[in-house]
Amino acid sequence: MLSKNKIKQINGLQIKKNRQSSRFFVAEGTKIVPELVRSKIQVLELFGTDRFFEMSFGNEIPVSIEKNSISEAELKKISSLTTPNEVLAICAIPENKLNVSELKNKLTLVLDDIRDPGNLGTIIRIADWFGIENIICSLETVDIYNPKVVQATMGSIARVNVFYEDLKTIFLEALTKNNFPIYGTVLNGENIFEKSLTSNGFIVIGNESNGISIELLPLINEKISIPTFSVNETNSVESLNAAIATAIVCTEFKRRK
Amino acid sequence: MLSKNKIKQINGLQIKKNRQSSRFFVAEGTKIVPELVRSKIQVLELFGTDRFFEMSFGNEIPVSIEKNSISEAELKKISSLTTPNEVLAICAIPENKLNVSELKNKLTLVLDDIRDPGNLGTIIRIADWFGIENIICSLETVDIYNPKVVQATMGSIARVNVFYEDLKTIFLEALTKNNFPIYGTVLNGENIFEKSLTSNGFIVIGNESNGISIELLPLINEKISIPTFSVNETNSVESLNAAIATAIVCTEFKRRK
Repeated sequence: MLSKNKIKQINGLQIKKNRQSSRFFVAEGTKIVPELVRSKIQVLELFGTDRFFEMSFGNEIPVSIEKNSISEAELKKISSLTTPNEVLAICAIPENKLNVSELKNKLTLVLDDIRDPGNLGTIIRIADWFGIENIICSLETVDIYNPKVVQATMGSIARVNVFYEDLKTIFLEALTKNNFPIYGTVLNGENIFEKSLTSNGFIVIGNESNGISIELLPLINEKISIPTFSVNETNSVESLNAAIATAIVCTEFKRRK
Repeated sequence: MLSKNKIKQINGLQIKKNRQSSRFFVAEGTKIVPELVRSKIQVLELFGTDRFFEMSFGNEIPVSIEKNSISEAELKKISSLTTPNEVLAICAIPENKLNVSELKNKLTLVLDDIRDPGNLGTIIRIADWFGIENIICSLETVDIYNPKVVQATMGSIARVNVFYEDLKTIFLEALTKNNFPIYGTVLNGENIFEKSLTSNGFIVIGNESNGISIELLPLINEKISIPTFSVNETNSVESLNAAIATAIVCTEFKRRK
């Protein structure tokens, strides 16, 4: 049985302010919850149907995690999904501390105000696929623990470290102390398919409508563009979706290694 | 003033059955509607606010298109958007006839049961960016004239030809009569980054959950895969989103030309 207070607490975690004060977030479904349980993310409580706990995965759940058997009607009361899927988990938000120097020899994605939860989730999944371990988000980027983002990552949220930082401060540190390349996708940059690319540095992806913000542009020392191959010279497509651009840029960096 | 019948007719076009019987679809917003008016798509009626018709674009509207000035409250009654955006257009569904032989020297995307409207819209935008003029969809693929797809294409719907066909029949014709390559993304295909690719043929993208359907697999004569660069050997990301995979594959075909 779910208490009224518990229902209120769980639904409250759909709001960023409550996630930040409690340091908890919610994940849902038979695909992502088992992945989180097996990952380094700390899962505190599970709310699942009997069917879920009877699944083969049931025996793998560590005793440290509190299991709550609930009905489908109860699950509906705490779920943010239109069609709840067997189980909901309350997890602890990891307390990652960013150390810029440690990123010196790695490729890192930097997101400058990505606002769409689906885009952020998809970008985290792309990072996971391409072995990019860290993503730095501007403070205005949508919260990674927003339920829509968590679902869109399809479990990749457990394998990629995400930091929220003031990007200007981070870029100045990366440039002055560590001297590493900061790539950014802009309108008139060098053709990424013809440019030499390093195996380390930041790759900055701009906001869906406005691109990279004006105050960060002067700090991008490697400006790149994805050329269009459109057959319509006039009246052609203006831009690629932010997640699509991320995928193409990451492909180009990783494929050449 | 909008009549009750008109409101009913326009809202009815949110449903596929009504679009198919009337051969009309709806597009909305100050970005996409002007693009459609300038394109080869036939726009029949516009329902816009005075502000919309007074915009610089107002003078460009051909006299053949019926202009209806309506209030924002009226626009809300016919819009499928949460936040209606100045204008709604009723357009004719183009009557494209597919001729497989004409595709022989081109790259063509083939979608095998793409179900998510956002994915289909994004894929059409990718095709436009990469100069892919034609997309063939299986009969079970989501309808391109679904309002969510129309919006997600961001105007690219006007520049890419989309056909709905029985894929098996089309593939057999492509193979037997025209003998051109049919590429498909599968789990254990050849590494796309190492494989030689032609500048023509079909590129088949499978369903979001199930990939390419079993009955089509034997007809794919060039099986390709996008390798992962994940650092997590076990418990790693299983797949890329269908639109992301499309972008990476199209990039690889086009970049080498």
